[in-house]
Amino acid sequence: MGQVSWKGLFLSLFDYKTEKYVIAKNKKVGILYRVVQLSILAYLVGWVFVVKKGYQDTDTSLQSSVITKLKGVAFTNTSELGERLWDVADYVIPPQGENVFFVMTNLIVTPNQRQTTCPESVNIPDALCHQDEDCPEGQAVVAGNGVKTGRCLKDRDSIRGSCEVLAWCPVEKRSKPKKPLLASAENFTVFIKNSIRFPKFKFSKMNVLATNNESYLKTCHYSMEHPYCPIFLLGNIVRWTGNNFQEMALEGGVIGIQIEWNCDLDQAPSECNPHYSFSRLDNKFAEKSVSSGYNFRFAKYYRDAKGIEYRTLFKAYGIRFDVMVNGKAGKFNIIPTIINIGSGLALMGAGAFFCDLVLLYLIKKSNFYRGKKYEEVKSSSRKSLTSPTLNGSQSPDQLGGL
Amino acid sequence: MGQVSWKGLFLSLFDYKTEKYVIAKNKKVGILYRVVQLSILAYLVGWVFVVKKGYQDTDTSLQSSVITKLKGVAFTNTSELGERLWDVADYVIPPQGENVFFVMTNLIVTPNQRQTTCPESVNIPDALCHQDEDCPEGQAVVAGNGVKTGRCLKDRDSIRGSCEVLAWCPVEKRSKPKKPLLASAENFTVFIKNSIRFPKFKFSKMNVLATNNESYLKTCHYSMEHPYCPIFLLGNIVRWTGNNFQEMALEGGVIGIQIEWNCDLDQAPSECNPHYSFSRLDNKFAEKSVSSGYNFRFAKYYRDAKGIEYRTLFKAYGIRFDVMVNGKAGKFNIIPTIINIGSGLALMGAGAFFCDLVLLYLIKKSNFYRGKKYEEVKSSSRKSLTSPTLNGSQSPDQLGGL
Amino acid sequence: MGQVSWKGLFLSLFDYKTEKYVIAKNKKVGILYRVVQLSILAYLVGWVFVVKKGYQDTDTSLQSSVITKLKGVAFTNTSELGERLWDVADYVIPPQGENVFFVMTNLIVTPNQRQTTCPESVNIPDALCHQDEDCPEGQAVVAGNGVKTGRCLKDRDSIRGSCEVLAWCPVEKRSKPKKPLLASAENFTVFIKNSIRFPKFKFSKMNVLATNNESYLKTCHYSMEHPYCPIFLLGNIVRWTGNNFQEMALEGGVIGIQIEWNCDLDQAPSECNPHYSFSRLDNKFAEKSVSSGYNFRFAKYYRDAKGIEYRTLFKAYGIRFDVMVNGKAGKFNIIPTIINIGSGLALMGAGAFFCDLVLLYLIKKSNFYRGKKYEEVKSSSRKSLTSPTLNGSQSPDQLGGL
Repeated sequence: MGQVSWKGLFLSLFDYKTEKYVIAKNKKVGILYRVVQLSILAYLVGWVFVVKKGYQDTDTSLQSSVITKLKGVAFTNTSELGERLWDVADYVIPPQGENVFFVMTNLIVTPNQRQTTCPESVNIPDALCHQDEDCPEGQAVVAGNGVKTGRCLKDRDSIRGSCEVLAWCPVEKRSKPKKPLLASAENFTVFIKNSIRFPKFKFSKMNVLATNNESYLKTCHYSMEHPYCPIFLLGNIVRWTGNNFQEMALEGGVIGIQIEWNCDLDQAPSECNPHYSFSRLDNKFAEKSVSSGYNFRFAKYYRDAKGIEYRTLFKAYGIRFDVMVNGKAGKFNIIPTIINIGSGLALMGAGAFFCDLVLLYLIKKSNFYRGKKYEEVKSSSRKSLTSPTLNGSQSPDQLGGL
Repeated sequence: MGQVSWKGLFLSLFDYKTEKYVIAKNKKVGILYRVVQLSILAYLVGWVFVVKKGYQDTDTSLQSSVITKLKGVAFTNTSELGERLWDVADYVIPPQGENVFFVMTNLIVTPNQRQTTCPESVNIPDALCHQDEDCPEGQAVVAGNGVKTGRCLKDRDSIRGSCEVLAWCPVEKRSKPKKPLLASAENFTVFIKNSIRFPKFKFSKMNVLATNNESYLKTCHYSMEHPYCPIFLLGNIVRWTGNNFQEMALEGGVIGIQIEWNCDLDQAPSECNPHYSFSRLDNKFAEKSVSSGYNFRFAKYYRDAKGIEYRTLFKAYGIRFDVMVNGKAGKFNIIPTIINIGSGLALMGAGAFFCDLVLLYLIKKSNFYRGKKYEEVKSSSRKSLTSPTLNGSQSPDQLGGL
Repeated sequence: MGQVSWKGLFLSLFDYKTEKYVIAKNKKVGILYRVVQLSILAYLVGWVFVVKKGYQDTDTSLQSSVITKLKGVAFTNTSELGERLWDVADYVIPPQGENVFFVMTNLIVTPNQRQTTCPESVNIPDALCHQDEDCPEGQAVVAGNGVKTGRCLKDRDSIRGSCEVLAWCPVEKRSKPKKPLLASAENFTVFIKNSIRFPKFKFSKMNVLATNNESYLKTCHYSMEHPYCPIFLLGNIVRWTGNNFQEMALEGGVIGIQIEWNCDLDQAPSECNPHYSFSRLDNKFAEKSVSSGYNFRFAKYYRDAKGIEYRTLFKAYGIRFDVMVNGKAGKFNIIPTIINIGSGLALMGAGAFFCDLVLLYLIKKSNFYRGKKYEEVKSSSRKSLTSPTLNGSQSPDQLGGL
């Protein structure tokens, strides 16, 4: 046993300890283990490294700025509005050109509304009345346009009428045109300017190619052939989502324009390009239901010569476009590489554990291998010290390897 | 040693090698190890698989579209505005019905402002003056409404006055009503239509139940009893955040409406339902301070008969609602399942390492077990080859197992 | 082999099994292994725990509310608009004070447009004509302002002219001022109020310090010396992005204001403070190109005494500010702590595997160590049972350790 020397203790620190292995000359389990190893290796190389690029550090916190600009004019001729030309300032709401914009395609106009009294629309259940008592003064009409004045207005000889209301009068008529007013919005174009930045890698890029000549950017339209042209025909966008523009223009809807930047910064910056996809975001299936379409009301306010305010109410139907940008950039980094290799190797331990189970409990000679793998030691018996593994008297142990 | 044959080399590839174990008949450490194993197993099954659903591939990149629509009218009678009815086009800003909308509940109106000269408000420190020299011409009033003209306007006999400014005149008076103008906004309702899509799983859903009859959707209000009704009473939303609507209507504020989709796509699609929660986003505690409330100024522009522009300035107080959608979907996938099992097993290795420490250094007979676990080999000594573990002469090694 | 007793089986469950190690007295590999161990330990402690705070549970799903408020007036004197004062309601679009706001700094005004016919701008290629046939009636001018009426309007004696269009007339002239109209916007200030909440930890905070006296908040400006003052001078913001305000005011642009909350909730709440950074989001390099700057068109609509609608068209250039908030909060949690320690230890297994490769295949006496590490067993031979490792006759095995 000798003396314990500090030097010996220190030196023993640098002895290398390695696990002792038992070679089981069993081809079945051996092949099984090699198959498991190869599967893990294939998963590690194929999935983790090639597909998921596990050797890269990634940045998903994209900084993005979207500027949109529409172009196009439409001419309409209706009884309500007369001959009228619609340009960008008329049909784009809001005008700022942010990532969400709305193109008006259909309209119900109620001009010259003033604050006064008038009959409520007969389509509103709460405003139906037989006598003045049905219209308590001061009560707001549920889902209606005004406050009841206490009078029930009836046509001559009729039994039912509608309550008189204090409101912006006349109230809106509930009749929608059968075909969209701005049907030619199909030919409008939108220019989408998207600058992105990955702050972790200090990498910036735009979807507008810097090297292009200007005339190309003024005439091109995005398509399969021109995947990097940032000008989109509204009709095409709607078609690519699988919808019909004229139908959608009538009832309105919401369309998402996804811009995806999936950049491998180990390659040249010119390889980092946007990928566009288009989808309809509102529920197109629920037709004619309360949940289909997209519309909202707004008003333009005027004053007459006497300074009295009046307004024109618009119920605008149209298509809202939501430009959504997301992206991911990856660049080689030593730390995720090591971690992925390390956890792949740790997975091999799990594979070995599985093969051990087979070797020790499932094959014919498992009892023999169990005896070889496990060496029983007892401190009380001198004999066991002398010949640890010779007797092979092993108590059966079902959970031994766990 | 024999000859090296290629066949032997190849066959040896399929020998299975398994680690040799020493069985230490020590019940204390044995029980400790089983406890550690069971803890890890419980963690793996209970936490990783049952709670965190580690067997699922998840998608958190939700595509969402929100459409909001308010309903309700309010009648007011003030000295400034006279009798007036407010409808959706009047009090919702912006009108588009996006995920952020503002409901005006209080107002300071300054009508008929024109570009001319008038005295600056006396509440603005920078505009106070004793003589014309205090108002240098052309200088903008700090935190004020206009540019100084060089004159100091004083009431008769008074020493102090305020500078004359070129501005939209008259300037706004700093007096806020004691009670909200549109107090009845509490009864307004908002219909929130939210379509979501998990692109990875190609799964779409709406918060409006497709099977509902329309009359239900026109009359229901969201509450504990109707958790899937998408129509919310503004007063309820504010109450659920723990605030008082009338107080909030006076000073304004910001309320967040969180919609959370937590979908287990291994179950039926009908099990994937939105969960709503409400919270106040601006700081309600900082009352009367510079940071409480929410308001902004906007103007409506008119032209008189001569074509001269004038405007009505509104300082609007109200509640801004931010609808925020987030979600997560999970679906069974073999890869995360394997990885989670593998890393759970790897964790067992850490448990074994911990028990080894106990066995080899902390118990009474640790010296003996250390000798059994570590088998010393030296290439120079023939004797050690013959009887590797018999002598048990082990140098003490405190860090040996690390 | 003895009898199998259930009691023995149960007791054997609590025998502790530990891997048998071979001590290779090879200092080179030993030192290598210690170096690998220390590297992994340093990585685990230094990177995972100290830098990445691996002992913390993190929440990145920040709830944020941004309220912005601008202050400042500007006086302009131009031939088109005369003397005019611009205040917040004039130059901020939209007025609501959300996280994205636009400050108008330059303008092209086209007043008194009416729906009638007039010559299209000569700068638009599609509207150039030699004779009436070049202007087919009803065709919209590509990238133009109206619909052709069929007439070609020429100056006396000239050969070329431009088509007459039905449009909002007169059409916009394409001349941009050489210097920004609202150059003094450089001195405007913006107050940014940002409340955040980490829902997982129920932690809320604001960027406005609650303890500050109000007069400080009314006079301070954000700078290196005042990092927690929420009032920013527009000129400073632009300067910090490396741009010149006057240049940017002329052509417009987009600036991102990032607010980052990186909170260690194991420390006092007062240590959780916002960090501001500023960057230009549109492409400033692409000067004079189609993709530089930021502008949009909007109109104000009026009615004359006869009720005929007319409008003033504005082409507004200016700076759009996008306030983007992101953040991360961490708090001690036992589960990530254990997982990180466990996977660090699993990484040590990978280190041991690497050293095994060196020991068994790369050093001089690798053949000897291979014999010691691997103990061959064969069930058919009685002799091999008696002296398992004595012969050392090991077939060379290149892939043995994998």
